[in-house]
Amino acid sequence: MSLKPYQHRIQKCTHLMQAAGFDALILTKPANMFYLTGDGRLCAYAMVTVKGEVALGVPITDTEDVKQHAHFDRISSFDDEVGMIHSIAHNFSHFGITKGVVGLEYAFLPQPRMGMLIHPHAKPEAVSAADCTPIMSELRIVKEDSEIEAMRKAAVVAVAGMEAALQAVREGVSENQVTAEAEHAMRQNGAVDFYRSYISSGPRTGIAHGLPTLRKLQKGDLVMIDLHPVVDGYSSDMCRMACVGEPTDEQRQAHDLFAEALQESFSKVKTGVGMMELEKTMHGVLKAAGHEKHIFGPPIHGIGIEFEESPLPPGHAFFHGEKEPPPLKDNVVIAIGNCGIYTGDWGIRIEDTVVVGADGPQILTDYSRELKIATP
Amino acid sequence: MSLKPYQHRIQKCTHLMQAAGFDALILTKPANMFYLTGDGRLCAYAMVTVKGEVALGVPITDTEDVKQHAHFDRISSFDDEVGMIHSIAHNFSHFGITKGVVGLEYAFLPQPRMGMLIHPHAKPEAVSAADCTPIMSELRIVKEDSEIEAMRKAAVVAVAGMEAALQAVREGVSENQVTAEAEHAMRQNGAVDFYRSYISSGPRTGIAHGLPTLRKLQKGDLVMIDLHPVVDGYSSDMCRMACVGEPTDEQRQAHDLFAEALQESFSKVKTGVGMMELEKTMHGVLKAAGHEKHIFGPPIHGIGIEFEESPLPPGHAFFHGEKEPPPLKDNVVIAIGNCGIYTGDWGIRIEDTVVVGADGPQILTDYSRELKIATP
Repeated sequence: MSLKPYQHRIQKCTHLMQAAGFDALILTKPANMFYLTGDGRLCAYAMVTVKGEVALGVPITDTEDVKQHAHFDRISSFDDEVGMIHSIAHNFSHFGITKGVVGLEYAFLPQPRMGMLIHPHAKPEAVSAADCTPIMSELRIVKEDSEIEAMRKAAVVAVAGMEAALQAVREGVSENQVTAEAEHAMRQNGAVDFYRSYISSGPRTGIAHGLPTLRKLQKGDLVMIDLHPVVDGYSSDMCRMACVGEPTDEQRQAHDLFAEALQESFSKVKTGVGMMELEKTMHGVLKAAGHEKHIFGPPIHGIGIEFEESPLPPGHAFFHGEKEPPPLKDNVVIAIGNCGIYTGDWGIRIEDTVVVGADGPQILTDYSRELKIATP
Repeated sequence: MSLKPYQHRIQKCTHLMQAAGFDALILTKPANMFYLTGDGRLCAYAMVTVKGEVALGVPITDTEDVKQHAHFDRISSFDDEVGMIHSIAHNFSHFGITKGVVGLEYAFLPQPRMGMLIHPHAKPEAVSAADCTPIMSELRIVKEDSEIEAMRKAAVVAVAGMEAALQAVREGVSENQVTAEAEHAMRQNGAVDFYRSYISSGPRTGIAHGLPTLRKLQKGDLVMIDLHPVVDGYSSDMCRMACVGEPTDEQRQAHDLFAEALQESFSKVKTGVGMMELEKTMHGVLKAAGHEKHIFGPPIHGIGIEFEESPLPPGHAFFHGEKEPPPLKDNVVIAIGNCGIYTGDWGIRIEDTVVVGADGPQILTDYSRELKIATP
């Protein structure tokens, strides 16, 4: 991508910084660094001043490599953590910032890493720190066309992973082997990373975070396949279900009901709608069919560079250091179906990645929502 | 595993708690929960009192599933973050803890999640919080036989992944496709998770964290393959190099020198040795051969449930909230070779997972350290 979008993002960022009273940001969260500079590597930092100046700091080994990704050319390098602290201090001095407020990612930094950034050697004494999580979320919540394009590519890769996974489902194969096939297909189709693949079976479909295990699929098992490939720095989120042989009537009904609830929720997706309204719509369908006690957790979250990002549902948002989600704007991207039906014995979840628009939703993970019946 | 080892671990834990002045711990880091209870799921907590009582809290969906993994039967469940806070408060009350100190994982919790655990509704007002990172590290640093057995299995899986990766190396194949083959083989051989696979090529072998990209291998490229499968909850760490066709003399010499430096370091591994002595030995060989300016970063770290854990080298340790590593005890497991030679144009790294013993090292990732020459 050219420099221009990044200059535009930095400009938007400085407006939000002004409003929030920040003189500078020090970012170390790869997603935020990637968004603002084009590069989001580990053990590095980006500094942005309210005047729109940008500096990057990377391990000395990465000095040349970072130039191929970052769109800003003030690059410092360091040998170790102490060097990183001094490099940040040097940039404060270079930009003439001797007092004021530096924004740090409170929702990302555990205490020892926070301690590095507020260390007396890292910043002038008269510079105090405050949380910049809300402004980074506000900045990233509405997606640009190029970002939606990347997510569309990630959705195509999710479909490739899903097809490989569904094809692998049969009696005697482990959850982990199904995952092997899904992830192999996603990498072969261009995903350079995934957020965790949640692939679970049988009773494990009913737990909150069904990471794959060595459990072997048995006849009659439901199988839940929830994938999150990363392509061009952006993620998609998609979940589908299979059954090893025939499901019970109850399972079949729950599955089709959940697909209906999802569809009802999609039908309300439109610029200006509240996330809670979409949730209520979805849960309303489930409750009306007698599944009130089988509902757990908020079924919708934002997605972009991270597979879960702003807008987050109010409770989650609070505990992630985020604000309550505002009414959804044009080109906010959300995943719907993240939490499903949990009967205690098994669970159902179908999930898609959806762009919010004035004319309704644009579903990126466009793939049959039927329960796949696998030959046992 | 039976209950007994967990009772023993809890007992050891309470001794460290007593010495550090903790009345209880609230753990939410999966690695720590897994170590002490047998279960380390996401969005859950374990509470341990100085009397050795244990309580677990899990999402309500997971109430049955957790019983199959955790070796303690006081299990609370909750609907959401607020429910989790109340569940913790209830356990404080149940265990009769009204004042004193609760240990929290400061090196793991970013501020909003720390905020949940020190919320006035989560704990009695007269209970203050302090960092329990050092005691959890001390607890886990010496491995039990069963842990070393799991790491041995993880090492066998790393070798399977390495062979698949090395076989995939050829001109025109991307770093990401090599990664696809390595990870597929590791899952097929029983790894249910990996820490990031670092697979890089050409100039990218010279950067600090060479995560795979879509870069296609070219004739003459060095390829760096660094794998970290997780088997039975434990990781191994192994890095080997390949070349697409013939390396330059300089590359060949650097590779063989690094293998020699590694071997020199292994020869010093013995109960009671200091980690810095092993580092100096290794760096000494590199410096003597003129690579002084190509050294970056500490080449040794502990490994166990996490692919990087205590003992960590002093600088890293400090910024991870850890203490300086004490002289290595029997059955501490370390990975040597984590940081290599960085020439600016390319890099060399060979890494193995090693058990410290009175009779010297036991190398778990036992596999040829030769530079693999792949047909272009």
